[in-house]
Amino acid sequence: MKERPENIIKDKDLVLIYLDEKRQFLVQAIKGLRLSSDLGDLNLTGIINQPFGYVGQTHLGRNFYCLKPSTADLMMKVRRTTTIVYPKDLGYLILETAIGPGSRVAELGTGSGALTLVLAKFVAPDGVVFSYERREDFIENAKKNIERAGYAANVEFKCTDVAKQGFGQTDVDAVFIDVPEPWVIVPKAFEALKGGHHLVSWSPNVEQVKSTIEALAAHNFQRIKVKEIIEREMLVRMQGVRPRERGITHTAYLVRAQKILATS
Amino acid sequence: MKERPENIIKDKDLVLIYLDEKRQFLVQAIKGLRLSSDLGDLNLTGIINQPFGYVGQTHLGRNFYCLKPSTADLMMKVRRTTTIVYPKDLGYLILETAIGPGSRVAELGTGSGALTLVLAKFVAPDGVVFSYERREDFIENAKKNIERAGYAANVEFKCTDVAKQGFGQTDVDAVFIDVPEPWVIVPKAFEALKGGHHLVSWSPNVEQVKSTIEALAAHNFQRIKVKEIIEREMLVRMQGVRPRERGITHTAYLVRAQKILATS
Amino acid sequence: MKERPENIIKDKDLVLIYLDEKRQFLVQAIKGLRLSSDLGDLNLTGIINQPFGYVGQTHLGRNFYCLKPSTADLMMKVRRTTTIVYPKDLGYLILETAIGPGSRVAELGTGSGALTLVLAKFVAPDGVVFSYERREDFIENAKKNIERAGYAANVEFKCTDVAKQGFGQTDVDAVFIDVPEPWVIVPKAFEALKGGHHLVSWSPNVEQVKSTIEALAAHNFQRIKVKEIIEREMLVRMQGVRPRERGITHTAYLVRAQKILATS
Amino acid sequence: MKERPENIIKDKDLVLIYLDEKRQFLVQAIKGLRLSSDLGDLNLTGIINQPFGYVGQTHLGRNFYCLKPSTADLMMKVRRTTTIVYPKDLGYLILETAIGPGSRVAELGTGSGALTLVLAKFVAPDGVVFSYERREDFIENAKKNIERAGYAANVEFKCTDVAKQGFGQTDVDAVFIDVPEPWVIVPKAFEALKGGHHLVSWSPNVEQVKSTIEALAAHNFQRIKVKEIIEREMLVRMQGVRPRERGITHTAYLVRAQKILATS
Repeated sequence: MKERPENIIKDKDLVLIYLDEKRQFLVQAIKGLRLSSDLGDLNLTGIINQPFGYVGQTHLGRNFYCLKPSTADLMMKVRRTTTIVYPKDLGYLILETAIGPGSRVAELGTGSGALTLVLAKFVAPDGVVFSYERREDFIENAKKNIERAGYAANVEFKCTDVAKQGFGQTDVDAVFIDVPEPWVIVPKAFEALKGGHHLVSWSPNVEQVKSTIEALAAHNFQRIKVKEIIEREMLVRMQGVRPRERGITHTAYLVRAQKILATS
Repeated sequence: MKERPENIIKDKDLVLIYLDEKRQFLVQAIKGLRLSSDLGDLNLTGIINQPFGYVGQTHLGRNFYCLKPSTADLMMKVRRTTTIVYPKDLGYLILETAIGPGSRVAELGTGSGALTLVLAKFVAPDGVVFSYERREDFIENAKKNIERAGYAANVEFKCTDVAKQGFGQTDVDAVFIDVPEPWVIVPKAFEALKGGHHLVSWSPNVEQVKSTIEALAAHNFQRIKVKEIIEREMLVRMQGVRPRERGITHTAYLVRAQKILATS
Repeated sequence: MKERPENIIKDKDLVLIYLDEKRQFLVQAIKGLRLSSDLGDLNLTGIINQPFGYVGQTHLGRNFYCLKPSTADLMMKVRRTTTIVYPKDLGYLILETAIGPGSRVAELGTGSGALTLVLAKFVAPDGVVFSYERREDFIENAKKNIERAGYAANVEFKCTDVAKQGFGQTDVDAVFIDVPEPWVIVPKAFEALKGGHHLVSWSPNVEQVKSTIEALAAHNFQRIKVKEIIEREMLVRMQGVRPRERGITHTAYLVRAQKILATS
Repeated sequence: MKERPENIIKDKDLVLIYLDEKRQFLVQAIKGLRLSSDLGDLNLTGIINQPFGYVGQTHLGRNFYCLKPSTADLMMKVRRTTTIVYPKDLGYLILETAIGPGSRVAELGTGSGALTLVLAKFVAPDGVVFSYERREDFIENAKKNIERAGYAANVEFKCTDVAKQGFGQTDVDAVFIDVPEPWVIVPKAFEALKGGHHLVSWSPNVEQVKSTIEALAAHNFQRIKVKEIIEREMLVRMQGVRPRERGITHTAYLVRAQKILATS
């Protein structure tokens, strides 16, 4: 099968190298770089100019597959300085807002940039993500993650304390809040948001959610909803189908609300 | 608060009219149209040229809120001829592929067009959704749903039997399969997909998933995964926080796999 | 197949009459009593002296089955004046205590007597359930439910306000608390319990659980645990296996703790 | 607080020694025995003649608590030769049958005897558990577990192949089946059961459940139900309440059915 040029792995492209469930690596295809695994080593030079879907072999003769990274792969495999939001949660949250190509979105805090990356991808080519973070070192790491994924043009990083100084923006299409005390940010988010548009936030503890909800109700937000998204893997094998026996049982409670304009 | 022009409700804009959890309506703001509810009627003429976030009153004096519809609202409130995929599932599935602005995506079947609409939104402004469906009447209804949401330029409908005639496309970035027998479509999807890229599919029954997995394994797909996404609402009220007591307990099992090129 | 005498349906025995999932009735086999359903009527006289497992026919020719009621049937089908604890929760809670035949158990409040009935069954033949309730009318209804099930000898009802007057017992093997404010009862339960033995309690809201836990920690209880038990039905049919699509998504959070003696 | 004699820890009593969540041990109080932990050692001689609920100290000065083992503790802490049924599942299953003090119950296979022990406890003082197992060594281990818990008088072990030779009993009140191929046992269970009474079975895989259901339907069982019981721990701490983040996500699907007599 002949692959069109645009599906050829080029120098520095992100590739998901997959040997099996326990051995999968998100790498940049850089000439001369070697990747090691207990099933053998592989030279990334050999995959450049091959199409995605290419099957190579390690020096021990084991197949590896050159796969296109999904958006979930890109976010789960950033270099992490912090915990990150999970794809099951983020997929749901994105659809709970109105954002898409061209949107202007504010995000707090930047953390490892996993969320930043996904938002940037979905507001491209003309939209922008304003990403706020107090720690300069987090922004440095996130910048590298975003550049590696190719979305630097769609992100503006801001090293600032939003709780004190606000977002310095108005008329954004959505605000994503991932901080330990979202309720402190609610009045600033109100200022930044377009009327009728969406604030989303997530927290691991019930008390955080309750404080956030109270702040939202006090600051003229409406249509407030809290959900939990639980992911369960099914193992489908010749010997039988069953859910996986151990796994993640909680990540965060997800909050969504919409800004109402003051009646005059 | 002054709203920028682009956040003003214009003639024919889609607006989510929200009175409370049980009374929320996705409507087009059409002059002269009236909306009725047991909490009073409202004239849509009155919301045109108001900003999103506007608070109006029914003739019985009850507040209603003019909100921006989320992507989930757009898909859940299409005119339905069939069951539709849920936002909790679709959000997860989109992140499991590599699609974004500019992608070329194949979808089967069109059904009510809820999925078509979301895919079109996320591949805009330059991408395209090829949407396949055997029933002409379903396509007619879906077309109206897509036009109403403003994404007609990003969708090509095809009234055809993919199981027999294939997709008639190659090098698509992802294939979304929502039919009762996905395993029949797997070889056709293989032909349509770019190497290394993603097929996603979902089915309510375990046996359907098992047959799909077997077809994927037989047709050179790799990194096959099956997940279930369970949504649980939390009720956060003054008198106490608890999960909702009754609700949806199953929609579908979600399958994802990636195409491998034949070794030559 | 010949049934031994003890499995013969006798006058006044409790029988579960089962036509199908939507038509199942817990009845006493009383001569002359008729049972009506939309699939036909049946005369209970006809099942007396038949064995459990007997298949009868309604006057419209539909089969009905005379089944032995399970413990869950007995509790779910009491005449209800209040909400009741669910079998999924109670089964778990009973195993979290040390009770069995011969135990002395305190229960608050009596409510409809569903829990009373199950506890009485499992402490028989020599044990006793002390069942506390402030409302005389609830006790009257519960008494009938217990008598109908044949466990009157194992229950002592007490119409009293435990929050004020305590249990009036010491050295009970377990305390089961089903009231809106369990934390008020915790010090009284401490007095009533044997050292090292179990208090269990359940509440729908997070705040109730938190207050209960705080009271337990303050009153020298240890090994405090909170669980939620979620039941999910699987539909196994010729056309496919899948979880039921709608159902109960929350009942209560379950608390368990054990009494520690003061160090002197 | 003075404890009645019957709540005093006697020689060879089973005691749950609890230091904290990660350090809890089910032990027999045997004179001269020492128990070691990383928080210090303790001499079991010192707890004999103390009441349950007693607080002792390790040689490093850490408190330990002498607690009454719950039924769940007894089953979870048997010496295991096999996987065992979980309390969340067993509690539900027991209530789905009609068994209680005095019942005659058949169980297959014995395994580690965890289920045997619980059934024996709940049919005491006059009932009996017939426990079937092909492997003599499993029975030997299970016997020790049952004797240690004090229920030897209520169990009859049978080293036999039930699939070939049947249960050798009739008119049992319930059959509990825990083998990889329950469908093979269904006709034998039918012979053993009283009319109208309960068969319960559990299996990790969907296919096993489906084959079991088909066998039940073919052998005149009715009111067939399949459930899954999911346990979720809530962590209630000063800093916040949330579900535990990782844990068990699947154990088994639970089947229940009732025997119908042939119409003659």
